[in-house]
Amino acid sequence: MKDRKLLMIPGPIEFTPEVLRAMGMATTSHVAPNFIEAFGQALERLRQVFLCPSGQPFVVAGSGTLAMDIAAANLIESGNKALVVSTGYFSDRFAAILERYGAAVTVVHAPAIGDAPALEEVADVLKSGGYKLMTITHVDTSTAVGADVKGLAALGREHGVLVVVDGVCAVAGEEMRQEEWGIDLALTASQKAIGVPPGLALVVAGPRAMDAFRRRKTPVGNYYADWTEWLPVMEAYEARQPSYFGTPAVNLIWALNVSLGQILDEGMDARFARHRRLSEAFKAAITALGLRQVPVAPDKTATTITAPYYPDGVDSTVLRYINEAGVILAGGLHPAIKARYFRIGHMGAVSASDILATVGAIERGLARAGYEFEVGAGVAAVQEVLRSA
Amino acid sequence: MKDRKLLMIPGPIEFTPEVLRAMGMATTSHVAPNFIEAFGQALERLRQVFLCPSGQPFVVAGSGTLAMDIAAANLIESGNKALVVSTGYFSDRFAAILERYGAAVTVVHAPAIGDAPALEEVADVLKSGGYKLMTITHVDTSTAVGADVKGLAALGREHGVLVVVDGVCAVAGEEMRQEEWGIDLALTASQKAIGVPPGLALVVAGPRAMDAFRRRKTPVGNYYADWTEWLPVMEAYEARQPSYFGTPAVNLIWALNVSLGQILDEGMDARFARHRRLSEAFKAAITALGLRQVPVAPDKTATTITAPYYPDGVDSTVLRYINEAGVILAGGLHPAIKARYFRIGHMGAVSASDILATVGAIERGLARAGYEFEVGAGVAAVQEVLRSA
Repeated sequence: MKDRKLLMIPGPIEFTPEVLRAMGMATTSHVAPNFIEAFGQALERLRQVFLCPSGQPFVVAGSGTLAMDIAAANLIESGNKALVVSTGYFSDRFAAILERYGAAVTVVHAPAIGDAPALEEVADVLKSGGYKLMTITHVDTSTAVGADVKGLAALGREHGVLVVVDGVCAVAGEEMRQEEWGIDLALTASQKAIGVPPGLALVVAGPRAMDAFRRRKTPVGNYYADWTEWLPVMEAYEARQPSYFGTPAVNLIWALNVSLGQILDEGMDARFARHRRLSEAFKAAITALGLRQVPVAPDKTATTITAPYYPDGVDSTVLRYINEAGVILAGGLHPAIKARYFRIGHMGAVSASDILATVGAIERGLARAGYEFEVGAGVAAVQEVLRSA
Repeated sequence: MKDRKLLMIPGPIEFTPEVLRAMGMATTSHVAPNFIEAFGQALERLRQVFLCPSGQPFVVAGSGTLAMDIAAANLIESGNKALVVSTGYFSDRFAAILERYGAAVTVVHAPAIGDAPALEEVADVLKSGGYKLMTITHVDTSTAVGADVKGLAALGREHGVLVVVDGVCAVAGEEMRQEEWGIDLALTASQKAIGVPPGLALVVAGPRAMDAFRRRKTPVGNYYADWTEWLPVMEAYEARQPSYFGTPAVNLIWALNVSLGQILDEGMDARFARHRRLSEAFKAAITALGLRQVPVAPDKTATTITAPYYPDGVDSTVLRYINEAGVILAGGLHPAIKARYFRIGHMGAVSASDILATVGAIERGLARAGYEFEVGAGVAAVQEVLRSA
């Protein structure tokens, strides 16, 4: 195990040994009492992790894209107007998904890659009226931009539109208080800050979202995503009763329940603070190494992920050197700048030691790539932030 | 481990230790070279297990219902005519899914629960013309009826309709030769005879199905299911190149690759024969115990599952007794007879010892329920079949 490479991408991430043990347990029936108990508990815990006591959780086998699809398919009817606050590739994907179900989509674009639309601009569009919902990408994994979810959700409330938050790279890492902030639906995927191997789409829908679903006049366009089928199943498991629509992913749900328990043991406030502190340390190191980041300002930056540009004279070859130094990082994803930057995920079970190891590998990789800088400046910057935290 | 109950339901089933170990491995990146290799290999092996050398495999995180949804959403355009050969609850579900995407569906019903429509009747409907596709449920898990896939597929070919086989409880257990039998699309879920914990939808589409998809005039109605997005991803992984649409379920795909390797090591013909032999032994035991089965005749019966009626004076309480005797079985599922029968899955890694243990637990459960019969007659019947095999 000791020569295993550290996985520091924006998901899948490093998972705890307890989560991996749950993955490898001998599978039982999806209606066995011990599984019903674990599934029911996981649903209750999701409400706590999303900070949405009156929400309705949905756990469905699939990727984060399915979670977005579930939101769009159940809330949109043909002709509905939707507003997308775009901070990158995944915001634009949400626009494409909404359109698939017949939405008339207005995208409010960021003024530049790495920036976010101003609240005033979003407010102006909302004032033009008639929007059924708006989507916000909490952390756009393609740019590492963190949106002002609290401010945007307040705007949405003010104008009476459903507020949908794509929290795929955010939930259980970035601060998000679904109910207090007036968010009607939040979603994520298992392999991000929620700390479970990929394969589960997770959605928590508040009362206004469920009401909008119940008032639909047309059937949901997507069979597998349809809450008509899933709602009774989720209600049954939470009441500790067996139920069936599609066979739940037993091992992944066991792992989810374990991870949610670990998250709640840490406590949401402590967890948000840890993510902020480790992100600050990591970003201080990136700056100390002389690297610029894609987000245009610190207040536009996510705490779960960092996206540095390669310095002059360095290209994606450095990722291989960093890999050989022991840490797996991700390349660029946003089509417009794909070859010019890289991405580091630091979320979930991430520790100070992981941060230090990652900065260390980046330093050694950059040195091998011929970049001139003060080797050790990055790890020193990490220590400086962490000692004062 | 020794007091762990044997899981003998129609999925999830007993998985091999190697598969469970793959589930619990530390997750890596979905674009790491060792994962790309495993995914690419799994795609190649799927083609071999489905016996469809010219097929295009799709592996997507989700349940078996998603696999059905993928087939319907990609092949149906609004107004297309579809024929459903119904042998139970899951056949009727396929009709509902096809209708969701605008198909005009004709269901050819079985004359009775436990029976299958006659080939002549299906041929007559096909002759009426204009059908784009037909669906066949190879094993309807609700009735344990095994359809004559070879005969029905030949009819479909004769009339130029796309032949879609729901192989959820069948693929890698029941004999199915996708290409030789002229099947255009076959699908299954991971937790059945393919031997991997729940969470993967598996589809192999032949050239005619892919052509029909490419000739679509309207976009696929379901975003997450859309081959437009998944096809380049599957082609890339098989070419050992990284790609991305939704994050693949890394651990499940590792487990899939391990299980497919074990299946091919056994060999498809040997595997079909083992399923037939163990099914024959199990069904001989059920008959020796004096229990009738839901399928009306041996030639209507699946080899992956058995569905006996409870004997007079016995109800579903006996499942609890059998559970306490060490084996988990499933209750009825077909709404019309739900309380009158139970279901045993015997597929995948199932062994002669599992069959004997299951019959033993059923005997002890029936005796405890007050049913009068010759205790030991079931296990003796198993031995009688297996010694001569």
